[in-house]
Amino acid sequence: MKPLGTLLSMADNYSLRKYKGKTKTRKLYLFLQSLFPILDWGRYYTFTNLRGDFIAGLTTAFLCIPQDIAYAKLANLDPHHALYASFVTPLVYAAMGSSRDIAIGPAAVVSLLLGAMISNEIRDHKSHEYLRLAFTATFFAGITQLTLGVLRLGFLIDFLSHAAIVGFMSGAAIIITLQQLKGLLGIPHFTKKTDVISGIGSVKTAILHHEWNLETMIIGTSCLVFLLITKYIGKKRKKLFWVAAIAPMTCVIVSTICVYITRADERGVLTVTYIKGGLNSVSANEIFFRGKYLVPGFRIGAVAGIVALTEAVSIGRTFAAMKHYTLDGNKEMVAMGTMNVVGSLTSCIVATGSFSRSAVNNMAGCETAASNIVLSIVVLLVLTLFTPVFKYTPSAVLSAIIIAAATNLVNINAVIMIWKIDKFDFMVCMGAFFGVIFINVEYSLLIAVSISFVKIVWRVTRPKVVVLGKIPGTSIYRNIEQYPKAFQITAMLILRVDSPIYFTNCNFVKDRILRWLRYENEERAECDLAEIEYLVVDMSAVSDIDSSGIRSLEGLYHSLEKRQVQLVLANLGKIVMEKLQTSKLTDLIGPNKIFLSVAGAVITYGPKREEL
Amino acid sequence: MKPLGTLLSMADNYSLRKYKGKTKTRKLYLFLQSLFPILDWGRYYTFTNLRGDFIAGLTTAFLCIPQDIAYAKLANLDPHHALYASFVTPLVYAAMGSSRDIAIGPAAVVSLLLGAMISNEIRDHKSHEYLRLAFTATFFAGITQLTLGVLRLGFLIDFLSHAAIVGFMSGAAIIITLQQLKGLLGIPHFTKKTDVISGIGSVKTAILHHEWNLETMIIGTSCLVFLLITKYIGKKRKKLFWVAAIAPMTCVIVSTICVYITRADERGVLTVTYIKGGLNSVSANEIFFRGKYLVPGFRIGAVAGIVALTEAVSIGRTFAAMKHYTLDGNKEMVAMGTMNVVGSLTSCIVATGSFSRSAVNNMAGCETAASNIVLSIVVLLVLTLFTPVFKYTPSAVLSAIIIAAATNLVNINAVIMIWKIDKFDFMVCMGAFFGVIFINVEYSLLIAVSISFVKIVWRVTRPKVVVLGKIPGTSIYRNIEQYPKAFQITAMLILRVDSPIYFTNCNFVKDRILRWLRYENEERAECDLAEIEYLVVDMSAVSDIDSSGIRSLEGLYHSLEKRQVQLVLANLGKIVMEKLQTSKLTDLIGPNKIFLSVAGAVITYGPKREEL
Repeated sequence: MKPLGTLLSMADNYSLRKYKGKTKTRKLYLFLQSLFPILDWGRYYTFTNLRGDFIAGLTTAFLCIPQDIAYAKLANLDPHHALYASFVTPLVYAAMGSSRDIAIGPAAVVSLLLGAMISNEIRDHKSHEYLRLAFTATFFAGITQLTLGVLRLGFLIDFLSHAAIVGFMSGAAIIITLQQLKGLLGIPHFTKKTDVISGIGSVKTAILHHEWNLETMIIGTSCLVFLLITKYIGKKRKKLFWVAAIAPMTCVIVSTICVYITRADERGVLTVTYIKGGLNSVSANEIFFRGKYLVPGFRIGAVAGIVALTEAVSIGRTFAAMKHYTLDGNKEMVAMGTMNVVGSLTSCIVATGSFSRSAVNNMAGCETAASNIVLSIVVLLVLTLFTPVFKYTPSAVLSAIIIAAATNLVNINAVIMIWKIDKFDFMVCMGAFFGVIFINVEYSLLIAVSISFVKIVWRVTRPKVVVLGKIPGTSIYRNIEQYPKAFQITAMLILRVDSPIYFTNCNFVKDRILRWLRYENEERAECDLAEIEYLVVDMSAVSDIDSSGIRSLEGLYHSLEKRQVQLVLANLGKIVMEKLQTSKLTDLIGPNKIFLSVAGAVITYGPKREEL
Repeated sequence: MKPLGTLLSMADNYSLRKYKGKTKTRKLYLFLQSLFPILDWGRYYTFTNLRGDFIAGLTTAFLCIPQDIAYAKLANLDPHHALYASFVTPLVYAAMGSSRDIAIGPAAVVSLLLGAMISNEIRDHKSHEYLRLAFTATFFAGITQLTLGVLRLGFLIDFLSHAAIVGFMSGAAIIITLQQLKGLLGIPHFTKKTDVISGIGSVKTAILHHEWNLETMIIGTSCLVFLLITKYIGKKRKKLFWVAAIAPMTCVIVSTICVYITRADERGVLTVTYIKGGLNSVSANEIFFRGKYLVPGFRIGAVAGIVALTEAVSIGRTFAAMKHYTLDGNKEMVAMGTMNVVGSLTSCIVATGSFSRSAVNNMAGCETAASNIVLSIVVLLVLTLFTPVFKYTPSAVLSAIIIAAATNLVNINAVIMIWKIDKFDFMVCMGAFFGVIFINVEYSLLIAVSISFVKIVWRVTRPKVVVLGKIPGTSIYRNIEQYPKAFQITAMLILRVDSPIYFTNCNFVKDRILRWLRYENEERAECDLAEIEYLVVDMSAVSDIDSSGIRSLEGLYHSLEKRQVQLVLANLGKIVMEKLQTSKLTDLIGPNKIFLSVAGAVITYGPKREEL
């Protein structure tokens, strides 16, 4: 096969390839198609697709409506703002999104985060300013997502590592559960803080003073037990997933009827009482574009937007891998950003891809993003026709729904696996977990990201330098610690540097190489073996070198020269080779000391074959 | 040779080895010896050593005394504080330091930095508080250095990369030169700010209003020309280095006599007028251990301490490499830290290894750190006997000395080399340079370190994934871009990931691998070649993987499974292999898909030999 020299640069422009040599109209159409994938898949939409999407959308709506009412509570807002979000945002996503499985709407963690962060700014949840700040945060969440997408900075959300997310979500689940004990048990006085100590304090006070409502407790705990059992059934038998999907709605309907019949609301059982019916009102004029809430609004929005993206993109990737299609992270962010900006202008709170709903959507057999349109239409019907029926829905049911959803967020197996694989990752995970529990959401993320980066910098600062030996019967040289049968070569020391050589590690690498040399010479002298004459450095893992690294290598050369040891380099990468040539270091070391492979260096400078 | 399994861990404890199996008294002695190397080399001190050290110390003192008086001016302090530092600190260093060539005393950049940063806090240079803050900063500079040394955090100073130092020093040289135009030209009104714009403004105003002193100008410029010429001679002919070394003292003596004879001081030529004679007074009670200047003192000290260390350690390393001895960075820091703490208690300003003096010391034939003792004694003599002679020394000479010393700091060749080797390093260099010139010292360092780290994170976030081909006539597989003769194998795609796989890059690496696969399949289809059945990933540069990376690899495996492509891994390192086993990923991929080398994988799954 012919050598393909310019492959890499071509592959980089891969996504622009389709525009080549097309007319302007065609280019515009292609551009619109890439912005609105519905223009693409819509043309091939079949009745079979519709059937799948219809059933999936309807099933998801059953889960979505009670969840929305509950999640609005997490954000300390009226239920209709979350329902609005489940009407508007899925429509935008259906047109612009590229995932076929994500179900769009408010999600537990993002709603909690909104509620907690806005409360820090404005204590009074009933004030109009609280609502305005919620819209402002939603707006800036969308703007953040749009910006990341348009500037192709989508990789930034990868900075929240898997370990950080696992820890963060588990911590959030505990906070959410604790907060919902208020509604579940009917505790009248409860802290507005989100940390675990305040939460436990409130529960303790309530228990000590017998401040709970028996009927609320019965409704709440029986619903929770029911939800957890159905969830267990749904998990065990994949075919019965719909049992778990419609369980929340069943709880809502049954408990609403019970309250209506028994008039328990008159004996202290709190109910939803009122959901504003009808369509979304315009909220563009409610957003704080100036004044003292602009900066907090932006900050809250940025954090909420990034957390929302993390959730949505990880869900999107999971299903895309499962169904074997590709997802462009940056395009997804543009879609999410647009939908949240539109949402913020139409009285919605931040929406994202929700894991529980997307799973139901997928299992109910959704075919395209059109399932989101079906979901949206069902929510529209509820908003216009059925809001009065929620008047008697007890709040305890909503708390039960939230707690049941929160159990999804805890993933003990993932934590155990992280512990086994990488202790540093475990620290990241625990940092996020305890950060959420004892401090707050923002610090938790900050702690996790900081630990993650300290780790990367540490690894680059203290790379491994390992001794290589020849694997018997081959011409392969490997770490003698990993392959104990590998043997060293007489009068040669072969080392491999396991990292690019940068300013942070160049002195360390040089010192470590010289230390190995000293140590090996001592060891060999003890065994009456020949002194080391050639030091071969395998550079296969040195993918880059900077100017400090070049200077260190030069220093190493001179130090070895003083010790009458020859420096030999093997397997230099393209970038490193070019830099060594530019800096004339190849001339200093000598072209006859640079080899394609360690084996080549050993053949040239090693002992004759019979001695090996 | 026997495989040495536990080598690495033993090498790590190398420095503790000498304590093994010794009595307690012996251990204490060894410990004291490692803290005070003079106990070691002092035992073997010979008369030859003494001769070398004596000449070197004396020559260095000739350079050091005028420089000290000048550098005190840079820090806006009275000359004797710098002379004190050249008396006390070399003594401490001689006992504790391990470099044989460093000459200790105040240095230009550190003094400038002290002057600029203390002026930001206290405008009035003559106030007693200014002096107290200088001692406080010196104290905390020492504490910072001690802490870094004791905690073995010496590697932190490597974070100031070579490129950053080159840029920083060049910028500092420009600032220093500009500031000294005041003294050199006898400009009466001059800005106290350190940025280049304020400096140029002051010079411009002076020129417009003819505000200079002709006699000062003549003295200053003629000295400067003399100094630059002697410096040039010293550089060109190594044997005449002493011409450059004694030139500053010559200037001082000649100009002092001229001023004394012509009584130019009465016609507006500023002179040193008064240097306090006698020994250092105790200043322990002057240090701000509380109050509003504690925090600024700590901050200034930390910055000055780190910059001082950077300079000293880089000088120490240079000479150690030249004379073939090793230098323990952490021990050096303990020595530097102790000497500055002692200095701060005895009215000294921050001292460090000065490049110009160390070079003179080295060229004058110093043998051990005892040359610093000679230097110290000479300074002591000057302090007790000769201070009155400096009464008529014109300030213009000091400015000329400073400017001549500053020219050492500019290294155009290094900047050009950095540009050629690494554009990112060049950005770091320019960041530091323009930071010093237009903002201030602290921000300059912050900018440089930030850019350096962004680069590292960027490289880890966007690693290269390259296509490998077989080099004809060998069993070696290398980057086909680097070796255009390398050819690809039928129905196989061999890729190498050039970085550890972490959360920041795991999705990128996976996407990049899948994109290569798609692209190569398209290319091969066009040429009517067989579709890819095996994807071999060469992991030789993947020195580590975290839990996100494991998940990505698992995702890659599943994606490839859908495309009916087999995933084969080659050349797994120790850590990566262990983590893949812990996560059971080796079982998923299959042990028969994991190879020691790419060649092994091709032999097993590639086309039969005749087809190759």
